[in-house]
Amino acid sequence: MERIEHRACFGGWQDVYEHASDTLDCTMRFAVYLPPQAERARLPVLYWLSGLTCNEQNFITKAGAQRYAAEHGVILVAPDTSPRGDDVPDADGYDLGKGAGFYVDATQQPWATHYRMYDYVVRELPALIEANFPVTDGRGISGHSMGGHGALLIALRNPGRYRSVSAFSPIVAPSQVPWGEKALGAYLGDDRSAWAQYDATALIADAPERLALLVEQGEADEFLEGQLKPQLLRAACEAAGHPLELRMRPGYDHSYYFIASFIGEHIEHHARALRDGG
Amino acid sequence: MERIEHRACFGGWQDVYEHASDTLDCTMRFAVYLPPQAERARLPVLYWLSGLTCNEQNFITKAGAQRYAAEHGVILVAPDTSPRGDDVPDADGYDLGKGAGFYVDATQQPWATHYRMYDYVVRELPALIEANFPVTDGRGISGHSMGGHGALLIALRNPGRYRSVSAFSPIVAPSQVPWGEKALGAYLGDDRSAWAQYDATALIADAPERLALLVEQGEADEFLEGQLKPQLLRAACEAAGHPLELRMRPGYDHSYYFIASFIGEHIEHHARALRDGG
Repeated sequence: MERIEHRACFGGWQDVYEHASDTLDCTMRFAVYLPPQAERARLPVLYWLSGLTCNEQNFITKAGAQRYAAEHGVILVAPDTSPRGDDVPDADGYDLGKGAGFYVDATQQPWATHYRMYDYVVRELPALIEANFPVTDGRGISGHSMGGHGALLIALRNPGRYRSVSAFSPIVAPSQVPWGEKALGAYLGDDRSAWAQYDATALIADAPERLALLVEQGEADEFLEGQLKPQLLRAACEAAGHPLELRMRPGYDHSYYFIASFIGEHIEHHARALRDGG
Repeated sequence: MERIEHRACFGGWQDVYEHASDTLDCTMRFAVYLPPQAERARLPVLYWLSGLTCNEQNFITKAGAQRYAAEHGVILVAPDTSPRGDDVPDADGYDLGKGAGFYVDATQQPWATHYRMYDYVVRELPALIEANFPVTDGRGISGHSMGGHGALLIALRNPGRYRSVSAFSPIVAPSQVPWGEKALGAYLGDDRSAWAQYDATALIADAPERLALLVEQGEADEFLEGQLKPQLLRAACEAAGHPLELRMRPGYDHSYYFIASFIGEHIEHHARALRDGG
């Protein structure tokens, strides 16, 4: 594991690391923000999963999250969104292949060898973080768009592992929208029964833990009607009695200006759960 | 003038406009952040000048300034850093030509026709803003690196025009460092007597107004020793009795992580002057 960026930020350090991932069979980068409190105490970790086309840089340069992480004493970890490198298969278009791992473990070729972002985010990355940084076992998870999908499904499938979960503009029902149908079809094959384990809306009915979901959604989001459809998640939560706070925000779109405007409230939400649960 | 971006942000709007500039003889873009208070009141304006390689996007996507502008009720205006377009001459390298206007009115060819960023920032852009947005005549000015140089020299040369001025990592003495010698030599010619009007340190002795300067500087800035040299500005201010608050920040570098960490304090500084002076 090698540190390749190290920059003072809000009294702490915004770092980027590179490491050889066994799970993904390639070199990966992830970002870590260590707030000033990390000099003298173990802190909980909020994992952030980014959306289509992103890498580990988008969140740390555009969301303005470090200010709030420093205020609340939370470490932020932001991985890349897919395996990387010349040996990794890719596809034309921005919504499949590199930058579009969809937080699944692919079963179909040519994807199955490297595209194992679910396993990477659930297992390998936290193990690396917990072995190398001053962290408690308090974990929260959040993300944007494809990463919001990732955060929701990962929390739903791993009871007890996360104390808090939230999402911005998530793809809540990938099995029912074009982005998800394309990606899940390619990575998992045509049998749609294999898709349900990577679909938050489909997972709600039998979720083994009723961890509350916080979802932030802009009403002027250009993908709201075609790809995001938060009403599908709401209906599933109502049917199952799963707690959901869905905040619809008039005027806001899909961009980082939206995330920046509300990331402070999300970090406060996670910090409260991580502190009380600690 | 055409609005080409319009995004909700911290309860207000982060917009980008395109217009035909008479001064620069090309199409230019500038960013405007309108905080929520702009719906119902005239507000003061803080002009932000960006550094080498930047355009109107860097500050609005990376500094996290909108939060503080919304808190204090200040409009933010961020122009591009040079004339643009296929007809505009350019040079090899990042430190001359496009993205490197240095906030001067060039007198030498091939630059003199388009490279008039001093006049654009002092005259044309504020006139456009004041004709089209709900602003008072309260103006502050700030910037980063080459833009910090621009903010300081523009405030020093226009007494009464700005109520507040600050800079991050400014090139305080361009006549004495490689970036400035290259740019001022190209835009203004070899006669160094013409350079002094674009050199904050040289302007201090005879400044017609003793407007206090606030300068933020990272001690781990990779350009500190070779290009920035804040001690030259400090010596000039001490000799002339010009008020300067130079804040040296251990650990911080030249990046937007540095700007983001302290932009809140700068916006508060400007807001106080703009409010009290209003």
